Amino acid sequence: MIYLDQAASSFPKPVEVIQAMTEVITEYAANPGRGGHALSMRASSVIDRTRQEMASFFGFDHSDRVCFTSNATVALNQAIKGFQFEKGDHVLTTSYEHNSVRRPLEYLKKTKGIEVDYFNTGKTEAFDLEAFRKKITPHTKLIAVSHGSNLTGKIVPIELIGELAREKGIPFLVDAAQTAGILPIHMNQMNIDLLAFPGHKGLLGPQGTGVLIVGQGIELTPIHHGGTGSSSEMIDQPDSLPERLESGTLNTPGIAGLLAGLTAVKAMGLDTIRAHEKRLTEILIQGLEKIQFVHVYGPTTDRLGVVPFTIEGIDSQEIAIILDQHYEIAVRAGLHCTPLGHETIGTSSHGTVRLSVGPYNTEEEIRKVIQAIEEIVDGYFG
Amino acid sequence: MIYLDQAASSFPKPVEVIQAMTEVITEYAANPGRGGHALSMRASSVIDRTRQEMASFFGFDHSDRVCFTSNATVALNQAIKGFQFEKGDHVLTTSYEHNSVRRPLEYLKKTKGIEVDYFNTGKTEAFDLEAFRKKITPHTKLIAVSHGSNLTGKIVPIELIGELAREKGIPFLVDAAQTAGILPIHMNQMNIDLLAFPGHKGLLGPQGTGVLIVGQGIELTPIHHGGTGSSSEMIDQPDSLPERLESGTLNTPGIAGLLAGLTAVKAMGLDTIRAHEKRLTEILIQGLEKIQFVHVYGPTTDRLGVVPFTIEGIDSQEIAIILDQHYEIAVRAGLHCTPLGHETIGTSSHGTVRLSVGPYNTEEEIRKVIQAIEEIVDGYFG
Repeated sequence: MIYLDQAASSFPKPVEVIQAMTEVITEYAANPGRGGHALSMRASSVIDRTRQEMASFFGFDHSDRVCFTSNATVALNQAIKGFQFEKGDHVLTTSYEHNSVRRPLEYLKKTKGIEVDYFNTGKTEAFDLEAFRKKITPHTKLIAVSHGSNLTGKIVPIELIGELAREKGIPFLVDAAQTAGILPIHMNQMNIDLLAFPGHKGLLGPQGTGVLIVGQGIELTPIHHGGTGSSSEMIDQPDSLPERLESGTLNTPGIAGLLAGLTAVKAMGLDTIRAHEKRLTEILIQGLEKIQFVHVYGPTTDRLGVVPFTIEGIDSQEIAIILDQHYEIAVRAGLHCTPLGHETIGTSSHGTVRLSVGPYNTEEEIRKVIQAIEEIVDGYFG
Repeated sequence: MIYLDQAASSFPKPVEVIQAMTEVITEYAANPGRGGHALSMRASSVIDRTRQEMASFFGFDHSDRVCFTSNATVALNQAIKGFQFEKGDHVLTTSYEHNSVRRPLEYLKKTKGIEVDYFNTGKTEAFDLEAFRKKITPHTKLIAVSHGSNLTGKIVPIELIGELAREKGIPFLVDAAQTAGILPIHMNQMNIDLLAFPGHKGLLGPQGTGVLIVGQGIELTPIHHGGTGSSSEMIDQPDSLPERLESGTLNTPGIAGLLAGLTAVKAMGLDTIRAHEKRLTEILIQGLEKIQFVHVYGPTTDRLGVVPFTIEGIDSQEIAIILDQHYEIAVRAGLHCTPLGHETIGTSSHGTVRLSVGPYNTEEEIRKVIQAIEEIVDGYFG
């Protein structure tokens, strides 16, 4: 099996991930922060270590503001719905947002009367910061931006948007679902106030893990209320992070696995991972563009390892099924939870087939995929 | 290490749990329901099988209404906050509720103006159904009850409350955090509309898993909005369960582990587990009650394997630390996230030391614990 669905979930995982999870489950699967005994302390300790490593990896000084969630979607829901929006407040976001940003915003539009602007970042052109700046109004209370598109691999210059956000004094939320563990992200230097990402994609951790890092000065209303293992006597959630946003038992084995994933990423090095994925992506795009009837979407140069394509007149699902069943190549067809992104590139009606690469994919795999698509096109048009 | 903190998280886990998780992570850690390829289908398949097994185990006919969450707290938040409460609506609950029920209700009291009645179920006496019935008002929109107390092990007769709820036409939510996998629960027969429970306690699954089963006719507003892998083009969440309440990537390895845990529970048999825990609990209580200066709380007969005690004048945390560090016995001291429960039994100021047993604890372990507590008392008072 050639796995090119890395943008949905990375596979394979470093062997250390399952080793770390096995250690937790067989040796100390006790409740972290809920007891003072040795096993519980050990569970708390691996979680604290993961907070520290996450803070350090993402250029942030306060590991107690690293909050664990079950996935990036819940992290984004907490970030967006945690704001005390009022009717008429404005949120500036982009046309490439995943439904995990769009749907919470649309929900708040309906229930709280906020206004949402989906800035069109274009198909292949560079991000127009000046045009983006003009969308800011006196009512803009949040700028929420996906660092990289899960549809086209387009990268948004979060460092520039961060500067703008700081200049205007507007909180800045970055959805790093496609970039955490792939592109460098430095919360302090990039003026990011809220950073949300999954554990199971670029960070090579297991599913069931997500993170929200909450910048200093940002106060969020919890979306979950419950036991926090501290301040049990209070009717309200405790004020202190991370407990305030972490009700209920944490996913200790998952978080230990995530730490192992992050450690593997650090050992490979972001530069190496990025260079590898760039090379595979270039080979892929060059190969696909040579095939008649095939259309490749997204930026031509600086992009993530995410390559959507269509074959003229052929249903994307059908192509994905042939790749899977005949060639054992795992890809994803459809709208990828980003309908607005498809409107932006003009593929709403049929969706695309998405190929996405990871650090463990090889050039040989990419060449096999190109050949498979050539054969499929030959089969239809030859 | 003798582990008697089973009410916080069960330990050890059946070996099949980590085997199932290892299989997912090493063989098919793809995104369930997000792609049509073989690995994604395999991930979807283990999740669907778990839904079916859960539905069947809890006497429910519709496996598509079995929704996965990251823990019981999130399941309870979804159940409680998902209701369309209006100002003046009334919720009837009990004085033994965990903060995972109490804090969401208190939040709705503050933000939506609902009224909440914490029915005092008493210390050791039987549940007074007639007194409970009298608390129902024409405005009662929800009855929310913990099946078993995490503080005293007191069991509430949910089958009787379910009958009452059906008679009155009021939705009935059961928090089975302490009972799922230990006591028989049959949603249909017991007229339960919403059942919430963790995967990592009695069901012997890993942390990072929880379940909310949503009875037919109950419609909940999602607390999380985002990508659901289906109906991507819609601005709103899809209407159909389970997707409506399951935004973002599910915890595939955790859910596979939970299925393995449930399978182990079924293989042992609820009757066997319950009888074993009852025997250990009786030995424990009889042993503790013979020790001077020791006070045991909770019902004398039919109770869960949860035994809180205090030693006169001695801080509970101190006892827990001695048990841990000197005897390698893991217990929990404190308020256990249930301050109202402590008010009910009169232990708010000092908390209690809680001993909680599981299917893998042995009589020998229990006897060692009793001896250790005897020695501790001797040390203080001898």
